[in-house]
Amino acid sequence: MIITKQNLLDTHKRIKDYIHRTPILSSQLINEMVGAEIYFKCENFQKMGAFKMRGASNAILQLSKTEKEFGVATHSSGNFAQALALAAKMQGIKAYIVMPSSAPEIKKAAVKGYGGEVIECEPNLKARESTLNDVVNKTGAVFLHPYNDYNVIQGQGTAAMELIEEHADLNCIFTPVGGGGLLAGTALAAHHFSPNTKVIAGEPMGADDAWQSFQKGEIVPQTNPNTIADGLLTSLGDKNFPIIKEHVEDIIRVEEEEIISAMRLIWERMKIVAEPSSAVALAALIKEKEKFQNQKIGIIISGGNVQLDKLPF
Amino acid sequence: MIITKQNLLDTHKRIKDYIHRTPILSSQLINEMVGAEIYFKCENFQKMGAFKMRGASNAILQLSKTEKEFGVATHSSGNFAQALALAAKMQGIKAYIVMPSSAPEIKKAAVKGYGGEVIECEPNLKARESTLNDVVNKTGAVFLHPYNDYNVIQGQGTAAMELIEEHADLNCIFTPVGGGGLLAGTALAAHHFSPNTKVIAGEPMGADDAWQSFQKGEIVPQTNPNTIADGLLTSLGDKNFPIIKEHVEDIIRVEEEEIISAMRLIWERMKIVAEPSSAVALAALIKEKEKFQNQKIGIIISGGNVQLDKLPF
Repeated sequence: MIITKQNLLDTHKRIKDYIHRTPILSSQLINEMVGAEIYFKCENFQKMGAFKMRGASNAILQLSKTEKEFGVATHSSGNFAQALALAAKMQGIKAYIVMPSSAPEIKKAAVKGYGGEVIECEPNLKARESTLNDVVNKTGAVFLHPYNDYNVIQGQGTAAMELIEEHADLNCIFTPVGGGGLLAGTALAAHHFSPNTKVIAGEPMGADDAWQSFQKGEIVPQTNPNTIADGLLTSLGDKNFPIIKEHVEDIIRVEEEEIISAMRLIWERMKIVAEPSSAVALAALIKEKEKFQNQKIGIIISGGNVQLDKLPF
Repeated sequence: MIITKQNLLDTHKRIKDYIHRTPILSSQLINEMVGAEIYFKCENFQKMGAFKMRGASNAILQLSKTEKEFGVATHSSGNFAQALALAAKMQGIKAYIVMPSSAPEIKKAAVKGYGGEVIECEPNLKARESTLNDVVNKTGAVFLHPYNDYNVIQGQGTAAMELIEEHADLNCIFTPVGGGGLLAGTALAAHHFSPNTKVIAGEPMGADDAWQSFQKGEIVPQTNPNTIADGLLTSLGDKNFPIIKEHVEDIIRVEEEEIISAMRLIWERMKIVAEPSSAVALAALIKEKEKFQNQKIGIIISGGNVQLDKLPF
């Protein structure tokens, strides 16, 4: 499928009453440290605390009236679970969320708080897929994939659209990469609305399937990821990888200490709560800052859902 | 001294190029929890991370050219130290900051980072005063008090002026109270620009000198304060107390757990980093929320300078 400029414009129009237009912040001190002019698109201030609300809203809004009657289902223990639950609630439909029984209670509670129905399964891939199948068969709900879905990808792209609308002349936009939905959406937004803007991803060294896939030219699945950036543990999908291959400039890998130190910088200097996954993008820029001196850079702060009693500092 | 409406308007005009006009945020979830419509004036996003930048800038801008040549001095281990250092640097003058030798290195480093000269003293009142006297005598610098100073009070009042300008019909504004500069400035701003808006302070039970003074009608000095709200340990001053007595509606005391829980709510739900002192104002509103149902409330988030490795959760 080719996602056109008009597709993205339609997507933004479709979801805009269901999402916040998030603020764009800057920090003089971080600019001086990096030697660049940085604009942070703060999706931590998005509804439910992450950009995932954009993709989830768009995917549900594309369902037919009949489909909506049976609700939606997904498997996720992260932000997409909450996003789908809230987006479904806002549109008055049911959301079934399959989560591993080992997921933190706070995450299950958050999904329930947004009105989602949590179905627990054993914490392994096979149980997750069979449980999801059971739910879909039993309820007739439509399965929505957290990132390997064109409607989700387009929804995620609207964050960069807003950033580009306010700062048309960015040299680069940095995002983190996990499953690839945000990165692919951002790359499409830059391609269509600011073709001179390069899109670059940050990825944890301990979960570098996107970097490996990018190097090899084919999807290398994630195995045994090990990183504090708990939103970036997933593998790329076959729908977003071709977009990433075509439109992304580079993927920069960062160490855990670099992630934690970028996260702390964001909290201390910008006074905002950002997830470790969000800090990966800034960490990547800092790591290779020599290449970006005096440039105008956008960074997508992907979310702010953090367990405050488990901080790395 | 009577501070007029015109004084406040002049103050805001004087300092506005030296400060940020900070954003005003809301949280639907917190509104639902409290049963009111709350507007948070986010001084944690102020330059150097706290409202103190307003008062410090105003006090320095009121100095004569000759006075400026010798610089300014103060004693503070908190936000006023950083604010005076930065405001002085922005105006190209020297700042001498007397700090107890026991102050955290991170706070001394922050003052130095803003170009201030740190002079250490023994951690007691007598040493602090004699060291400050020595500095003033030796350098000719002008002593600026962190809160018991009319120019400082007027500067602090500009946060509420901006809040009122954007939300004219507030029923109440809540602030924390420590030394009384922010509370007095806020009370004056409400008195002159929104006379129907009541001003209410939150104060930690473990440092309740303002509450005691307010009850008794005369200043009761703070002794042995004990609270996580480290910006609220000081006693009221003879310049701000009369303003507080005349224009403040109430002071509500809160327990430590109430402060920590309000702080956590701000961080988790608004995704911003706010100091414990800032959370005291929200904690006070939550404690007596029955009185404020369906009201439109302003809250001044006073600052965001927190030691991230010493969080209470």
